[in-house]
Amino acid sequence: MAPSIEGKRPEVKSPMNTTCCNREEITPRYRVTVVGSGNWGSVAAKLIASNTVKLPIFHDEVRMWVFEEILPGGEKLSKAINQTNENVKYLPGIKIGKNVIADPDLENAVKEANMLVFVTPHQFVAGICKRLVGKIKPNTEAISLIKGMEVKTEGPCMISKLITDMLGINCCVLMGANIANEIAVEKFSEATIGYRQDKEVAQRWARLFCTPYFLVSVVQDVEGVELCGTLKNVVAIAAGLVDGMNMGNNTKAAIMRIGLREMRALSKLLFPSVRDSTFFESCGVADLITTCLGGRNRKVAEAFAKCGGKRSFDELEGELLGGQKLQGVSTAKEVYEILSHRGWQAIFPLFTTVHEICIGQLPSSAIVEYSEQATNFSIVEGLAQYC
Amino acid sequence: MAPSIEGKRPEVKSPMNTTCCNREEITPRYRVTVVGSGNWGSVAAKLIASNTVKLPIFHDEVRMWVFEEILPGGEKLSKAINQTNENVKYLPGIKIGKNVIADPDLENAVKEANMLVFVTPHQFVAGICKRLVGKIKPNTEAISLIKGMEVKTEGPCMISKLITDMLGINCCVLMGANIANEIAVEKFSEATIGYRQDKEVAQRWARLFCTPYFLVSVVQDVEGVELCGTLKNVVAIAAGLVDGMNMGNNTKAAIMRIGLREMRALSKLLFPSVRDSTFFESCGVADLITTCLGGRNRKVAEAFAKCGGKRSFDELEGELLGGQKLQGVSTAKEVYEILSHRGWQAIFPLFTTVHEICIGQLPSSAIVEYSEQATNFSIVEGLAQYC
Repeated sequence: MAPSIEGKRPEVKSPMNTTCCNREEITPRYRVTVVGSGNWGSVAAKLIASNTVKLPIFHDEVRMWVFEEILPGGEKLSKAINQTNENVKYLPGIKIGKNVIADPDLENAVKEANMLVFVTPHQFVAGICKRLVGKIKPNTEAISLIKGMEVKTEGPCMISKLITDMLGINCCVLMGANIANEIAVEKFSEATIGYRQDKEVAQRWARLFCTPYFLVSVVQDVEGVELCGTLKNVVAIAAGLVDGMNMGNNTKAAIMRIGLREMRALSKLLFPSVRDSTFFESCGVADLITTCLGGRNRKVAEAFAKCGGKRSFDELEGELLGGQKLQGVSTAKEVYEILSHRGWQAIFPLFTTVHEICIGQLPSSAIVEYSEQATNFSIVEGLAQYC
Repeated sequence: MAPSIEGKRPEVKSPMNTTCCNREEITPRYRVTVVGSGNWGSVAAKLIASNTVKLPIFHDEVRMWVFEEILPGGEKLSKAINQTNENVKYLPGIKIGKNVIADPDLENAVKEANMLVFVTPHQFVAGICKRLVGKIKPNTEAISLIKGMEVKTEGPCMISKLITDMLGINCCVLMGANIANEIAVEKFSEATIGYRQDKEVAQRWARLFCTPYFLVSVVQDVEGVELCGTLKNVVAIAAGLVDGMNMGNNTKAAIMRIGLREMRALSKLLFPSVRDSTFFESCGVADLITTCLGGRNRKVAEAFAKCGGKRSFDELEGELLGGQKLQGVSTAKEVYEILSHRGWQAIFPLFTTVHEICIGQLPSSAIVEYSEQATNFSIVEGLAQYC
C-alpha cells in the first residue's frame, strides 16, 4: 500500500471508539503517542497529527509525552502547548496541530496507545523504558527516531534493540536528512524507515509520517538505518576539520566518501544482515550530506581546526552550541573502542584518525594523511570484501 | 600491485631505450602522451610527470599535445610551456614538471607513445581520433578523462567507446571529484579508474596517476564510471535550483540523493553490467558532492532560480562563466531524449523535471514537486528493481 495521502477521512460517528470493528477500513484502530517533545519530537508530532486527522486507520488524537518544565512566566510547558498548539520552548512559531495533546504523565500518555514514537535524548531511553515496563498495551509497536548507541565490549547496542529488549515489543527506526526546523516549515525532505521482519507494520509507520513534503521509504534493515544515523556524526567531525583548514570541496567530498565507505564497512562487519542499498537511502548518503554541510559536529570541528587544536572540543562545544550536545566526539570514542577491541584500526583509518585528533594525539591535518594506509592494496582489498 | 609510490628510480644507463629488456623491472617500457593541455590536462600531466620520473616502468618524458595558440605577447603557447614548465594560459603559477614536453604536432606527439591520455573538450574527440587513425603504435592503451557523451537513438555513445571504435584500442576512463585547480596545489583528492577486462592495465594507469595527495582506485565498470561523470551535471542543475530558492540543506541533500538514485538506475538500465558499488566510489558520490557544492552547473542554475527563470540558461552562462561551457543543460536534454524515446520519464522524475525547467516548461519550484510520483509505490518499486 502506498504511504501517500489518501483523501479526506470519511465521517465516523464515534471516532474515539477503538473497539467497534464492523467497518474495519474506516474504524480507527491505531492510537499514537509520541514519547518526547523536544525540537524533533514536536516536528514529528506535527507530521503525525497532519496524517491522523486524515487517515481513517488512525485516531485523530496524538498524545505527546512532555517532560514537564516551568516556563519563565511560571506556566507549565504542557499547559502552554495545549493552549497554543505550539511547543513554545522547543519549536516556537509552529502550529503542531490541535489534535496533539501534551501530557506530562508518562504512564497516562501511553496507556491507550498501540503505536509509540520514541524521540528523546538517547541517554534517557533506558530510564523511560524502565518506567514503561508492564504499562503498555499488548501488541504495541514502537519506532525510534533517536540517534545514538550504547557501546559494550561485544559491540554496539542500538536504541531499537534496547527498546525491544526492555519492553518486549517490535521496534522500527526512522532516520534521514532531517533538520527539524526545516521540516517544521515544510521544506521538502525525505526519511528512511528500517524494519526487521514485518513490512506491513513498516508501511503503516510510513503512512503515519509521510506528507507531500516529507517522503518516507521503507527498507528491511534496522541496524543499517540506525548505524547510519549514529556513525555519520564521526564523518561530520572529519568534514568540519577539512572546512577549518580551508582544504576545498574536492577534499571535503573525498573525506565524506571515505567516511561513507567506513560507515558501510563497519556496519556490515558488526551486522552481516546490513545491506549496501541502505546507504543510498535518505538515512545514508543524504543524511551524511546534510550533516557535513550544516550540523553542529561539523561546526565545532571547524572551530577546533581553525584554532590549531589549542582549544578542546568540550570548551568549543560549550561556547558554540548554547547547551546542545555534540555526539560525534563521543561516538568517535565508542567506535574507537569497538575497533581497538578487534584490532580493526588499520582498516578504518578515518574513524581511527578522527578519534586520535579529538583527543589531541594527532594534529587536524592528519585527517588527510592516512594515504599510505589507504593506498595499501592489501588493506583496501581487505576492506573491500566488506563493501 | 599497489598503485603507490615505490621509492626512487634505480639508475638506468639508457633510460630512453625502450627495446632493451634484460632487466624488465627497471627498463622503461611505457611512454605516455597526454592528448590535451587545458586546465585539467595540465594538472594530469603534472601528476603523471611526478610519477614517470620515479617509477622505472615509465619513461621520464611525458609528451603533451598542445592545440597551438599565440599568446598576447606573440609567443607560441607550446614554446612558453617548454620554457617555463608552466601552462601560462590554462594553469598559470604551477610547475608541471621539466619532463613534460609540449608538442603542437599531434602526430609527432603520439608516435612514440603506448599510453595515451585523452583530456580534451568532448566535442573535439572524434576529430582528433580521425587524425590519429593509423598513426599510433600497436598495443597502445588509452584512458579518457573526458566527461560527456554522444546521444544516439539507440542510447548514449560514451567517449571511451568512441576512442575504442575509431582507433581499435582498449580505453579505460578516469573520473572523480577532481577540481583541477585544487589538485594542482596538491590538496587531497581521489579518483576512480574504470576498466573493461584487463585489471593489470588499469593498475598501471593507477600507478601513473596516484600520488600521496591523489588516490586512485580501480573498478571493472567503464560505463558506470563514465556515466557518473556525465549524469552528475544534471543533478547539479537541480541542486543549484534548490540553492537559488533558499530551500536549505535538507532539501538539497534529498535532491542530491534522488539524483544519485536516478543516475544509478539509468546507468543500470542502459548498461546491465554497471555495478552498484561504482556509485560509492569517487566518481559517484564524491564527484556528485563536489559538483553540487561548487561547480558551474550549480552556479548558473542558482542564478536561474533566483531570477525566477526570467533569464535563460544561455544568457546566464555567458554572463557567469567567462567563456566556459555548461554541460548540465545539454546533458539534461540528451537524457530527456533517451527517456522519452523509451517512455521512461515517469520513473525518472528528477531528470525529466530538470529538462522541463531548463526549457521553461516548468517553474524552478517544480524540482521538489514530483512527490506524488515519488511516493507512488508502484513507480518507486518499479524503479527499485534497477537500483
